[in-house]
Amino acid sequence: MSWKDNLLKIEPYVAGEQPNKTDFIKLNANENPYPPSPKVFEAIKNFDAGTLKKYPSANAVGLVKAIAKREGVGAENVFAGNGTDDVLSLAFRAFFNSGKPILFPDITYSFNTVWCDILKIPYKTLPVDGDFNINPADYARENGGVVIANPNAPTSVGRGLDFIREILEENQNSVVIVDEAYVDFGGTTAVPLLSEYDNLAITRTFSKSRSMAGMRLGFAMASAELISALYAAKDSMNSYPVDSIAQAAGIASIEDEEYFQSTIKKVMATRGRLAAELRKMGFSLPDSQTNFLFAEHEKYSAKDIFEYLKSRDIYVRWFNKPRISNRLRITVGTDSETDALIGALKEYIK
Amino acid sequence: MSWKDNLLKIEPYVAGEQPNKTDFIKLNANENPYPPSPKVFEAIKNFDAGTLKKYPSANAVGLVKAIAKREGVGAENVFAGNGTDDVLSLAFRAFFNSGKPILFPDITYSFNTVWCDILKIPYKTLPVDGDFNINPADYARENGGVVIANPNAPTSVGRGLDFIREILEENQNSVVIVDEAYVDFGGTTAVPLLSEYDNLAITRTFSKSRSMAGMRLGFAMASAELISALYAAKDSMNSYPVDSIAQAAGIASIEDEEYFQSTIKKVMATRGRLAAELRKMGFSLPDSQTNFLFAEHEKYSAKDIFEYLKSRDIYVRWFNKPRISNRLRITVGTDSETDALIGALKEYIK
Repeated sequence: MSWKDNLLKIEPYVAGEQPNKTDFIKLNANENPYPPSPKVFEAIKNFDAGTLKKYPSANAVGLVKAIAKREGVGAENVFAGNGTDDVLSLAFRAFFNSGKPILFPDITYSFNTVWCDILKIPYKTLPVDGDFNINPADYARENGGVVIANPNAPTSVGRGLDFIREILEENQNSVVIVDEAYVDFGGTTAVPLLSEYDNLAITRTFSKSRSMAGMRLGFAMASAELISALYAAKDSMNSYPVDSIAQAAGIASIEDEEYFQSTIKKVMATRGRLAAELRKMGFSLPDSQTNFLFAEHEKYSAKDIFEYLKSRDIYVRWFNKPRISNRLRITVGTDSETDALIGALKEYIK
Repeated sequence: MSWKDNLLKIEPYVAGEQPNKTDFIKLNANENPYPPSPKVFEAIKNFDAGTLKKYPSANAVGLVKAIAKREGVGAENVFAGNGTDDVLSLAFRAFFNSGKPILFPDITYSFNTVWCDILKIPYKTLPVDGDFNINPADYARENGGVVIANPNAPTSVGRGLDFIREILEENQNSVVIVDEAYVDFGGTTAVPLLSEYDNLAITRTFSKSRSMAGMRLGFAMASAELISALYAAKDSMNSYPVDSIAQAAGIASIEDEEYFQSTIKKVMATRGRLAAELRKMGFSLPDSQTNFLFAEHEKYSAKDIFEYLKSRDIYVRWFNKPRISNRLRITVGTDSETDALIGALKEYIK
């Protein structure tokens, strides 16, 4: 046996392409087209780099307090991490130790299955319906946990509070994670249910609505007991995941509610315009509660449109996966990026 | 069964205290007493926060190239992560899948056992001798991997290239990780062995010699095959661990060799002075190749000295663990912090 036989063999998650050129339109990673709050610029410019010699505040105390205040929960109900991926993978490890399969939709964030494989958590996926709706009744079965993205990705479909409540009612013996990565773009948050269900954990990210994908910041909100389990998982792997500058920049973002709202409004307005144009061109797509659209054309294949757009230096996302291989996931860009996209599509779809 | 029964139960790693006050001397986390390079200050001040709206360079390309150039290895031989803890935990997952026990000293970085427990990697610890020396012959047995910190922590003892070579010669069928977190303070790096042994992985951190603990940056150097396995492990968990500002600041640090050398020289000079004073006071301690000392007093118990220093607002580290419970791990601070420590100790030890 050579050491080579014992290396990890795993199919890595493939993110949206980052082409090695500068002059292209990137609508493939659900990034926000607008910069972060001016207060984030300021926080970074004024950051005292001398403090970097010390480890960061281990539990990101200041950031946690700012989030708690903004969301109307206690500081003991918030956990900050190095992006939602960090928070979710810790949550899987912290919450899903029953040995029973955890449940999530067949079409949802693709990291779920990866974390289950790594952490040896059994899972069962349940099909969404033809309109990409999740049926809460499907989740009324014995399980080791439930993970729902609401709004869901890559479908863009969001559901209301009754939907989450129904899932929680059916699952009082499991932890239910609601991933709200995209909720700020018109979705319905489950935060009001936190006071009723201590087995509910909500995750959020700074990467989308707060324009801070480059910073790696995410957080969870849950009962103090679930948050403690997250700290246990974190402290056992890597005591200081959120760096000092990210904490300062995160606080600055959270404290600028006005800028946050205005950015979201712009993205949602452009989304509405793009959706209307796409439908006029023969695309069908669900109403989006996210910063992207999930569109299928009546005549042209998604793969062909994807390749064509790439040849025009416009990058959207195409998943070569069952049930969704004829769909494109298109991030809502600026107005001028959207105009360029619409223009290119109009040339292709005659 | 309630969901509470399935939460993770784990004994978390306890880091050095971070007291909730400002006026104290912190010598308990092996932080560098000097700020990072002025070029790091500049890089942060000039960082364009607008770029944060996009995800970072997924594999920290620019930072990896800067490290490769400085260390005289290829870019394909470098992997950057969110602190050494991030890099090491990925390395354990990527390299140690044989099912056979991995080997490391009984006294070494305490996260090793934690990662083994989480990843279900069997391990066997091998005792260091009375002078805290690792005996390479101990590692000539069947195993699933070897992890050596050189210089070792918390002992401060470092060994030469022949020592590492002997371990590598005995372990051609396992991956050997050499954690060089402290090597810059006068240790001997195993980098020259990289071209000879493609089963060798070296890890480093920006937290100590580069004064950037607050930033969370670490890296590994190894053969292209081992680096690929690290990428596979990383990409499956969290595609973008190193944020954009950390990449920029890391590059700035790497490129300021002069400042780096001058800081290290200062720390080593203070270390020599502190070691001499401690010995005069009746402490015994090995010669340190790190930025800390590992000292035992002939008369006073480590715990008592630890508590006394705390009452004087000086925080050092005491581990209540077998074989080392009568030792203090004392980080080398600035000259004035060191004077305060010496003064306080002189009052106690009459």
